[in-house]
Amino acid sequence: MKIIENGVCAAKGFTASGAHCGIRKNKTKNDLALIYSETKASAAAVYTTNLVKGAPLVVTKEHIKDGKAQAVICNSGNANTCNANGIEIAEQMSHLTAKALNIDPKDIVVASTGVIGQPLDIEPIANGIPMLVESLSKDGTRDAAEGIMTTDTVVKEIAVEFEIDGKVCRIGGIAKGSGMIHPNMATMLVFITTDTAISPEMLGKALSGDIKNTFNMVSIDGDTSTNDMVTVLANGMAGNEEIVSEGENFEIFMKALNTVTVHLCRMIAADGEGATKLLECRVKGAESEEIAKTVAKSVICSSLLKSAMFGADANWGRVLCAIGYSGADIDVNKVGVFFRSAKGEIEVCRNGAGVEFSEEKAKEILLEKEIDIDVTLGEGEFEATAWGCDLTYDYVKINGDYRT
Amino acid sequence: MKIIENGVCAAKGFTASGAHCGIRKNKTKNDLALIYSETKASAAAVYTTNLVKGAPLVVTKEHIKDGKAQAVICNSGNANTCNANGIEIAEQMSHLTAKALNIDPKDIVVASTGVIGQPLDIEPIANGIPMLVESLSKDGTRDAAEGIMTTDTVVKEIAVEFEIDGKVCRIGGIAKGSGMIHPNMATMLVFITTDTAISPEMLGKALSGDIKNTFNMVSIDGDTSTNDMVTVLANGMAGNEEIVSEGENFEIFMKALNTVTVHLCRMIAADGEGATKLLECRVKGAESEEIAKTVAKSVICSSLLKSAMFGADANWGRVLCAIGYSGADIDVNKVGVFFRSAKGEIEVCRNGAGVEFSEEKAKEILLEKEIDIDVTLGEGEFEATAWGCDLTYDYVKINGDYRT
Repeated sequence: MKIIENGVCAAKGFTASGAHCGIRKNKTKNDLALIYSETKASAAAVYTTNLVKGAPLVVTKEHIKDGKAQAVICNSGNANTCNANGIEIAEQMSHLTAKALNIDPKDIVVASTGVIGQPLDIEPIANGIPMLVESLSKDGTRDAAEGIMTTDTVVKEIAVEFEIDGKVCRIGGIAKGSGMIHPNMATMLVFITTDTAISPEMLGKALSGDIKNTFNMVSIDGDTSTNDMVTVLANGMAGNEEIVSEGENFEIFMKALNTVTVHLCRMIAADGEGATKLLECRVKGAESEEIAKTVAKSVICSSLLKSAMFGADANWGRVLCAIGYSGADIDVNKVGVFFRSAKGEIEVCRNGAGVEFSEEKAKEILLEKEIDIDVTLGEGEFEATAWGCDLTYDYVKINGDYRT
Repeated sequence: MKIIENGVCAAKGFTASGAHCGIRKNKTKNDLALIYSETKASAAAVYTTNLVKGAPLVVTKEHIKDGKAQAVICNSGNANTCNANGIEIAEQMSHLTAKALNIDPKDIVVASTGVIGQPLDIEPIANGIPMLVESLSKDGTRDAAEGIMTTDTVVKEIAVEFEIDGKVCRIGGIAKGSGMIHPNMATMLVFITTDTAISPEMLGKALSGDIKNTFNMVSIDGDTSTNDMVTVLANGMAGNEEIVSEGENFEIFMKALNTVTVHLCRMIAADGEGATKLLECRVKGAESEEIAKTVAKSVICSSLLKSAMFGADANWGRVLCAIGYSGADIDVNKVGVFFRSAKGEIEVCRNGAGVEFSEEKAKEILLEKEIDIDVTLGEGEFEATAWGCDLTYDYVKINGDYRT
């Protein structure tokens, strides 16, 4: 498997585009994105578990219940959620896109991200769609990735190439996500395309299996959004024999998908609102996978630890504290903690108590942009990884006046 | 019932003192506190549910299992937790205090608060205890309250006077708590004294009944501390007939206790690390008390909402979002939201969707120091209140370099 360029356009038959259509006041920011497959594709999606669900999710769920889709339309700047006519607007977006592409409205995945609770005006979108269809191209992944960004500061895309049955397959994705991120069985906005031939059923299985260890292990701020969604379109143009069951080919596909999703998870966490550091917590030696995940996520979610990481303070007591209240049944007297980065590794806690360490060395390690927090539980063979970011002044700034 | 002065010294027979003994480097900050009852008192306590438990909690639990205690010794500046000899140090603190007071070491409640994972030197405490015993007085509540503060910016104390069987009783308390606050079946450090005659059993019942609706409904940052503890000492010197069962007198006592605890909860939330505002979320119309509590606490814990409140931004969509991911089974289409403060009240959401409101008026309301977020669920008769604070630059600042 190798990393390649071109995000959602890397796979055969996929084109994309993005533009500013007028939802946002800032004209330099794209606010509409389109992804299109030449042929109808297998489609799978997972959605937020928030009881308050964005109208586009409701519409998309209905559209892809036949396991098929051909295009994705997504706006940023307004979540089209908790307003009176959200469903109607999401349906209009689908119809306008389908009409301009000359395909069935039921084959449209529709998504929105931005402020909750404000009416979404269809007019700029109606004007923007023909423009987007016109500009669809193999180079459009970046424009599309920009079109779905809100408070994101970097474009998030990746693609990989791999072989199934001697056929070259590709899988690529774009993502947005910076705040209100604490996915639960679903996640931020992520659009993945692949030319692998795979049945809708196996695609759904691959996606829901993958997100448990990827997007559901990311937290920026503990807030599970109303509009989280991950979708995959697989148009089969790589020409491999369709994957219709588990087995070697499915494993290869899962591995490629995982490479894409882990990369996007890390990019999302590193670009968390106001973040200056990517935090990766790896828990090893757990009695079960569930315990490993619970502990890893608790550490990543601690506001106190996140603030300490911002300050490059090796305050490992906060790691222990977060493990202790995680709800996982562990023996705290067996816990070990290491901090690691490009500058080296330092042990700070063994058997639940502090060990002598050089504060200077710890500072040097923690001043890096990517910090690993390794936790050993000493009780079994299971492990898990969670991703998050530090808590900074800028998180507060961004969210103190996001809407106004 | 009336509010009176003098915190933990308000009740008959109780004296207190506080001083700087040398645990902290900053000599202007008290770091040791003592509370003493002339006679042995009924004692009850609740503790953190964090699996990592401070050594003092383990020792205190052992000491008061006979339902009796006579004094409280508490240091700040070091949590005496996750270090090699914590239990030994906590026992030494008890013995030194008992010796200086000429009472049984088993009648000492011992507590610590501060950094986790650093050895606690007994020497400054050993030197400080005789000094504290010497300076015990009826005016000592403020010195003691200062002795237990960490990042707290205001002293937290309250007392009330009430009658049982024609006898005047008093109940008063001091508290500390600013960060790492998200109690769960227990709470921050709170010491309450009363001269009401009440059996240890009924005192325990009163305390554990009360905290479910008070301290367990406070969250500053979602982090459940390792050293949370609330204790009540009741020395019976008011002369009322001892409360040994439920009934009218127990109800009177519960009401007085609740007045004290709610006041301390509000003070703790308002003085959350870096906080500029007290947030009170009242959920009404819930199908069960459990649902009301779950919803209220989810709203209060949302980092996004907390940041919006700091920015005085009426971003009610974040309230809906937090209700939606709370885990409570509610119908989002029935939800209503109001913001209220000394400047008035404004309806921002009805039946799960936004209503037109004056942004100017909303700003005026949200610029106040105490904000009520009223949520109506429209499904039943149950209600709950939770307390929290806004998320500010200063929270990050305080916790980015707390230890160093």
